[in-house]
Amino acid sequence: MALKARVLYDFSSENPGEISITENELVTLFSEEELEGWLEGENSKGEAGLFPASYVEIVKDHITSSTNNNGFSSPKTKMSPTHTSYAPPESQSQRGLGAGSVGSGGGSFHTSQGSDDDWDDDWDDSSPATNAPPGLGTTPPLYPVTTSLPGRRGSAPPHQQQAKSSATVGRNLNRFSTFVKSGGEAFLLGEASAFVKDGDRICVVMGKHGPEWQEDPYPFTCTIDDPTKQTKFKGMKSYMSYGLTPMHTNVQVNRRYKHFDWLYARLVERFPVISVPHLPEKQATGRFEEDFISKRRKGLIWWMNHMTSHPVLARCDVFQHFLTCGADEKAWKLGKRKAERDELVGGNFFLTISTPDVPLDLQEVESKIEGFKSFTKRMDENSVVVNATINEFARKQITGFKKEYQKVGQSFKLLSQAFELDQQAYSVGLNKAIAYTGEAYEVIGDYFSEQPRQDLDPISDLLDLYRGHLANFPDIIHVQKGALTKVKDCPKQEGELHDRCNIISCATLAEIQHFHRTRVRDFRSQMQHHLRQQIGFFQKITSKLEDALQRYDDDQ
Amino acid sequence: MALKARVLYDFSSENPGEISITENELVTLFSEEELEGWLEGENSKGEAGLFPASYVEIVKDHITSSTNNNGFSSPKTKMSPTHTSYAPPESQSQRGLGAGSVGSGGGSFHTSQGSDDDWDDDWDDSSPATNAPPGLGTTPPLYPVTTSLPGRRGSAPPHQQQAKSSATVGRNLNRFSTFVKSGGEAFLLGEASAFVKDGDRICVVMGKHGPEWQEDPYPFTCTIDDPTKQTKFKGMKSYMSYGLTPMHTNVQVNRRYKHFDWLYARLVERFPVISVPHLPEKQATGRFEEDFISKRRKGLIWWMNHMTSHPVLARCDVFQHFLTCGADEKAWKLGKRKAERDELVGGNFFLTISTPDVPLDLQEVESKIEGFKSFTKRMDENSVVVNATINEFARKQITGFKKEYQKVGQSFKLLSQAFELDQQAYSVGLNKAIAYTGEAYEVIGDYFSEQPRQDLDPISDLLDLYRGHLANFPDIIHVQKGALTKVKDCPKQEGELHDRCNIISCATLAEIQHFHRTRVRDFRSQMQHHLRQQIGFFQKITSKLEDALQRYDDDQ
Repeated sequence: MALKARVLYDFSSENPGEISITENELVTLFSEEELEGWLEGENSKGEAGLFPASYVEIVKDHITSSTNNNGFSSPKTKMSPTHTSYAPPESQSQRGLGAGSVGSGGGSFHTSQGSDDDWDDDWDDSSPATNAPPGLGTTPPLYPVTTSLPGRRGSAPPHQQQAKSSATVGRNLNRFSTFVKSGGEAFLLGEASAFVKDGDRICVVMGKHGPEWQEDPYPFTCTIDDPTKQTKFKGMKSYMSYGLTPMHTNVQVNRRYKHFDWLYARLVERFPVISVPHLPEKQATGRFEEDFISKRRKGLIWWMNHMTSHPVLARCDVFQHFLTCGADEKAWKLGKRKAERDELVGGNFFLTISTPDVPLDLQEVESKIEGFKSFTKRMDENSVVVNATINEFARKQITGFKKEYQKVGQSFKLLSQAFELDQQAYSVGLNKAIAYTGEAYEVIGDYFSEQPRQDLDPISDLLDLYRGHLANFPDIIHVQKGALTKVKDCPKQEGELHDRCNIISCATLAEIQHFHRTRVRDFRSQMQHHLRQQIGFFQKITSKLEDALQRYDDDQ
Repeated sequence: MALKARVLYDFSSENPGEISITENELVTLFSEEELEGWLEGENSKGEAGLFPASYVEIVKDHITSSTNNNGFSSPKTKMSPTHTSYAPPESQSQRGLGAGSVGSGGGSFHTSQGSDDDWDDDWDDSSPATNAPPGLGTTPPLYPVTTSLPGRRGSAPPHQQQAKSSATVGRNLNRFSTFVKSGGEAFLLGEASAFVKDGDRICVVMGKHGPEWQEDPYPFTCTIDDPTKQTKFKGMKSYMSYGLTPMHTNVQVNRRYKHFDWLYARLVERFPVISVPHLPEKQATGRFEEDFISKRRKGLIWWMNHMTSHPVLARCDVFQHFLTCGADEKAWKLGKRKAERDELVGGNFFLTISTPDVPLDLQEVESKIEGFKSFTKRMDENSVVVNATINEFARKQITGFKKEYQKVGQSFKLLSQAFELDQQAYSVGLNKAIAYTGEAYEVIGDYFSEQPRQDLDPISDLLDLYRGHLANFPDIIHVQKGALTKVKDCPKQEGELHDRCNIISCATLAEIQHFHRTRVRDFRSQMQHHLRQQIGFFQKITSKLEDALQRYDDDQ
């Protein structure tokens, strides 16, 4: 049976290779696999070519039509576009720490959307990575990351497709821009509408340094315990379970990586201008190996800290559900469905925002955004260099430095061995002292090889996390810029358009502000940690050497 | 005119290529140049081939015969055999510290004999190295050094050529052995005779660990000041002059390197079983360069310490003359001539030795000597490894370690530069702190590159000095073994032969004892110095890092 898809929205071909399709038309698909957001097929006129995958819904034999379908029916096509992978080129796996280095390295993040049906499956079995179209997510471009924001289900064109189109402001010509897909354009054009409860309201306030998210009145943190291995289906399947204990409830809940993954997907579609921290990379094999488990836990702790310290993310319903819902399977599924049916996603998110009384000066906003764009570009570029350098430095310490100190240690031992051939009583003390010095140098070699794990790896982890954020910002900036461009294009000063642009700008600037504050906090504390560790390291060496020095006094 | 030589002693050819020559025969030389102690020529029978250079005397047109000639007439042949060069393979020049690395590296020692005629010439102009026969002293073999002891004028066969030959003990078959050349054989056979003053007497006493040199009742040290550049012939010639201040006179005298060189040659011929410390290497070019001057001065200080701490060397006339004779040119020349005409050289040295009352057990001596032989072999082998290792370690610190720390420093600076694009007031403190941390790492890189000079180079220098001693011992042991073998070969117990063998054994064991004591003292103090320096080094790094850490508190 030929694979069919129903067209949800009109699309006019603009480039060679594309074909035009019309709402409600049935098209034949050549393949279910998307290529960078496009599907290939034939329209009812018999023209073959590409059209945007998000403009159609695949028709399975038992499905004929669905007007309020806000998703995709096939788990495959559902999963594919929601998978993104961000692998900084300097991942720790390049260190060549030995055999068994698994997966694609340390710095990758990914997300995939869960579904009710496969919720209980082990996520590794339905790894979306294997379904990803070729060229997608395998070698993501360096900065700027211009791929579309993934997993934002709300970014599908709104239901009110036939809604009042503003007389003066046209739609964005580039229908696949993040501005369109995020729902930003729809919101700006007044096409977004949803019921916003008081609890959903998010306030941007004017702080000393510009707009900022209102502080969480009830800040909390959440610990993540060492994961334990769980089995099910009589031991047929096994998975790691993390015990999370949020401080505001002090009740531990157990979560698996796929729960984090599902949560991440919800957050990404929910908040178009918030940089949701990337999860530590997924890994198909070796996931019960100690190194990987410890690395993932560290990554999840970083992730959790970024979540709980974000005033908007920390408070949001789906995250709270994730943190507080206990072992009651029913309650969990209820909250899960609620989150998946949340209307306040994408463009509707902006409906929840309260802004300061005085609107922002758009010129100023533009210059701030431009400044931030340069900042992220430079930070990303330089982070690559820093990460490469400290990883190389770590590698040198683990291999070269260690080897040098051990070689010196061994040579001192050789000297002492030669000296031992002299059986004079008065040389025994010296021989032992030199032998001990040799051992001390060997130990110092070990110190060097153990140290990077303590004080370089954490910096590398932090840089990875931040490069995840940096990869989020081009899309966030795109939404704001899209709004700004639209408003500038508008010949008449449309009050409402301006207000809505102000909302987007306030949210964007608040998020940027939050990014900077977190960045300053994180880098300060990590650099302090690094230096304290280094100081302790060199003191350890010093005391080892002092120990050796004393041996020379013993028989003076 | 054909070059002629008069044969001083019979020599029977033992190998192909050699020719036999007879006392008083005149032979024709093909060349004045010796090749490893051999000359090539034709005897009166018309046979052409090799014969030992020391068995003939070259006949210059105005010289016809000289029965008591104890030297050579040509400065060329005089200089050639007295030049030895000892270059450990791991010299510092291999570190590749940059361009301009001069000469053949740090670890070479040499000696050459002075003469009245060229005394005032700059030594570099008459460098014996240029006259050395090919293959001699250029690439000396590694351990064991089996080349004949150079510069021991007294080792020429004794005047009393026709002396009473012991009925039971024959001459050594190998006429070129150190035993013969050192005069050890002549002494053993009772052929040595000279007038020994009380002041010349050298006592070997029985100490706790065996025979040892009687301690110098008036020990002293001698400082060597930074050398100053002197000129003569109206600035045509220039040389470096070192101010020596021996503590027992506290009067400074000025000496040039060539004076040390002359002294060294005197000492080597004077003391057949004493290990005269090698002088720091001679260098033809760049000898006014700061690095070389400082290195030579360090080497001379080491040399001087070994001289003054040796009970026999410290006390001997020629050394005292060297240390105490002032600017009076006449007095200097007088002492110089006296030293050069000293009769108590070579085998006669043993005439000056007083031994403990109870003779040594020759079996025990033999076993001790064997043990020491193994010791020196192992110490030499392992010293090569140690020296190579620490020189490589020094090179790594100067290049690799420095570069790594500087790269980390630069990358932190890059991070801070990226962060500076954010003009938020609250990030200024962090930016500065990170920039400072970057600088701190660069400084630490410099620390690493400066450190080897403080604590690795001295060990390398010490090892070089000791490898010089180790190169001396095979010949010293050879003298003792020659005596022992001769005594063992003697069917009857000849009292006098035994007594003389006992003298040689006592002196040898005393010298070995002295070597061990000095070695233990030197290596203990050098290892302590090394460790103290390393401790200081790591403390310096620690405090630099603490400094950096503080910067993060400034605006907390």
